[in-house]
Amino acid sequence: MKITQTFVYQEIHEQPQTLKRLICEESEAIHRLAKIVQGRQITHVVIAARGTSDNAARYANYLLGAVNGLCVALATPSLYTIYQRAPRFGNALVLGISQSGKSPDIVAVLAEARRQGALTAAITNFPQSDLGQAAEHIIDLQAGEEKSVAATKTYTSELAAIALFSASLANDEKMLAALQRLPQVVAETLVMDNEIARIAERYRYMRACIVIGRGFNYATAFELALKIKELTYTVVEPYSSADFLHGPLAMIEPGFPIIVISPTGVMIGEMKEFIRILNERQAEVIAISDDDDLLAQVRIPLRLPLSVPEWLSPLTAIIPGQLFAMHLAGVRDLDPDHPRALHKVTETR
Amino acid sequence: MKITQTFVYQEIHEQPQTLKRLICEESEAIHRLAKIVQGRQITHVVIAARGTSDNAARYANYLLGAVNGLCVALATPSLYTIYQRAPRFGNALVLGISQSGKSPDIVAVLAEARRQGALTAAITNFPQSDLGQAAEHIIDLQAGEEKSVAATKTYTSELAAIALFSASLANDEKMLAALQRLPQVVAETLVMDNEIARIAERYRYMRACIVIGRGFNYATAFELALKIKELTYTVVEPYSSADFLHGPLAMIEPGFPIIVISPTGVMIGEMKEFIRILNERQAEVIAISDDDDLLAQVRIPLRLPLSVPEWLSPLTAIIPGQLFAMHLAGVRDLDPDHPRALHKVTETR
Repeated sequence: MKITQTFVYQEIHEQPQTLKRLICEESEAIHRLAKIVQGRQITHVVIAARGTSDNAARYANYLLGAVNGLCVALATPSLYTIYQRAPRFGNALVLGISQSGKSPDIVAVLAEARRQGALTAAITNFPQSDLGQAAEHIIDLQAGEEKSVAATKTYTSELAAIALFSASLANDEKMLAALQRLPQVVAETLVMDNEIARIAERYRYMRACIVIGRGFNYATAFELALKIKELTYTVVEPYSSADFLHGPLAMIEPGFPIIVISPTGVMIGEMKEFIRILNERQAEVIAISDDDDLLAQVRIPLRLPLSVPEWLSPLTAIIPGQLFAMHLAGVRDLDPDHPRALHKVTETR
Repeated sequence: MKITQTFVYQEIHEQPQTLKRLICEESEAIHRLAKIVQGRQITHVVIAARGTSDNAARYANYLLGAVNGLCVALATPSLYTIYQRAPRFGNALVLGISQSGKSPDIVAVLAEARRQGALTAAITNFPQSDLGQAAEHIIDLQAGEEKSVAATKTYTSELAAIALFSASLANDEKMLAALQRLPQVVAETLVMDNEIARIAERYRYMRACIVIGRGFNYATAFELALKIKELTYTVVEPYSSADFLHGPLAMIEPGFPIIVISPTGVMIGEMKEFIRILNERQAEVIAISDDDDLLAQVRIPLRLPLSVPEWLSPLTAIIPGQLFAMHLAGVRDLDPDHPRALHKVTETR
């Protein structure tokens, strides 16, 4: 099996196009939703999502907080489905995120929110799905069919939809302009493919690793960890650098691989100090960054070719992560399109 | 080093007393806070916490949702400390949970909440700490000094404080009565000590494992995973059974150890089905439960001697987990009181 002939390879490399399509075709719908949110004096946001979409929700947690001053709660679907004790949404915006729009637990949260009269919206690749029908407003990912079981292009489209929503809600022209340039930046980031194919060899026999990101890139850490798990069956744990110091640091022994995601931004000082602690403990640090000073401190630097504002960096920083997970599957002779035990649509309640 | 002479052993076995003290001495303060919350028509709850206390926050997320109809958001401290872009709290109750009360990031969330005029409360073992001083209301854990680096007795006291708060807020006499019986139930659960010491031998060379819990015991999965990491340096990942099916299931190969936490309750059907999937994939399932039918399905059954209502079960189900982590450290000749790289107070910003 040649990696370049897999769906996941094609879908990763299709991202400049899928992002461009989302930005062109959905900006208006997203802008309309933002206007409604402004008019209703929404007090907080509740998001229901699972898997990759839950990682997009983590991004929303930081972005809507930092840019829009909104507290975000990640919904606990079992309260709706198994315990049948739904909390009161009050004047919240309730957002469901799901590629397929099919997971019954996510649909249940939106249905209950609508029953309570809360403002509801769905971000999905299937507007006709149960989720699309449960929500009052729909943002269509327009990513085209995703044939690989592991989500790649729909993840970045979910992030871009959230970023467009945040920028629209803030009426921030500078953010909107940066988003217009995004497809080109992602295209240039994909140039890392060859280098990462080479570096993946080194991790042929890696049994476990840690992925660290904080702030906006907390989401990136979770998504990269999930891709490595899905595609290569490695035991991978994502952490914020702060949470990691509250206990899990004890796990680190010399040579333990830790991927640190740290693009330019206000978080970078924190991350440099964190890398110093890891180096002291002789961890093997792999860093995804555009900061040369930070990259000089680590064993395996993965240099992002372009710099973007920190709030937008989760959209570029995940690209080398997707490539790494895919190539590591290739190095291990695993089929990245059909991970064992998984199906494209997972229905949980 | 004899395990029975360690601080962590003493503190685990001290829990019937520390819980009794909390229930006797703090019920009134908690009841007062509940009255204030009722009077102010609180719309949602924001909790700031890290490490073990963050796991107590996960319990609050489900309990305050299921019993009190409150949406809970877990705060993202870096928005306050590093990005300096604090969200609007509106009419939220903002709760800080920290054993030491010293972590600057948790203090920063409470300070900002108070500045905004939100209702603030702290759950801490040190009422005089920065956190205690930042909050308007204090719930004192009264757990006595915790000398072991890994938190055990302060975790169950945090859970009990949250449960008391939830029961008071709901004016639920039945819940309050169940809480009165809790210290005795925990004392009887500690009888599992010998059996678990024996079973820990089997996992001397375990490199990685997964811990599963859902609903109320989602918190238990996270806390048990953290204890095993801190005390034994094993790579351990906690998951809800639903999230686990959305990707990570791919990791499971024959013999892979998975600890499933599943006491009696409405969640148990879900968990039995989940165990069936794990058995199909030939995982090694260790179960913590009081349900004989479920225990009969797994390789290593750990039987909880008593049954309690599901909302209270995180307080008993964590006990065999604490014992397991401690005995596994003993089996590996590690000092459970002084995990490498960790200190009792972790100050992150």
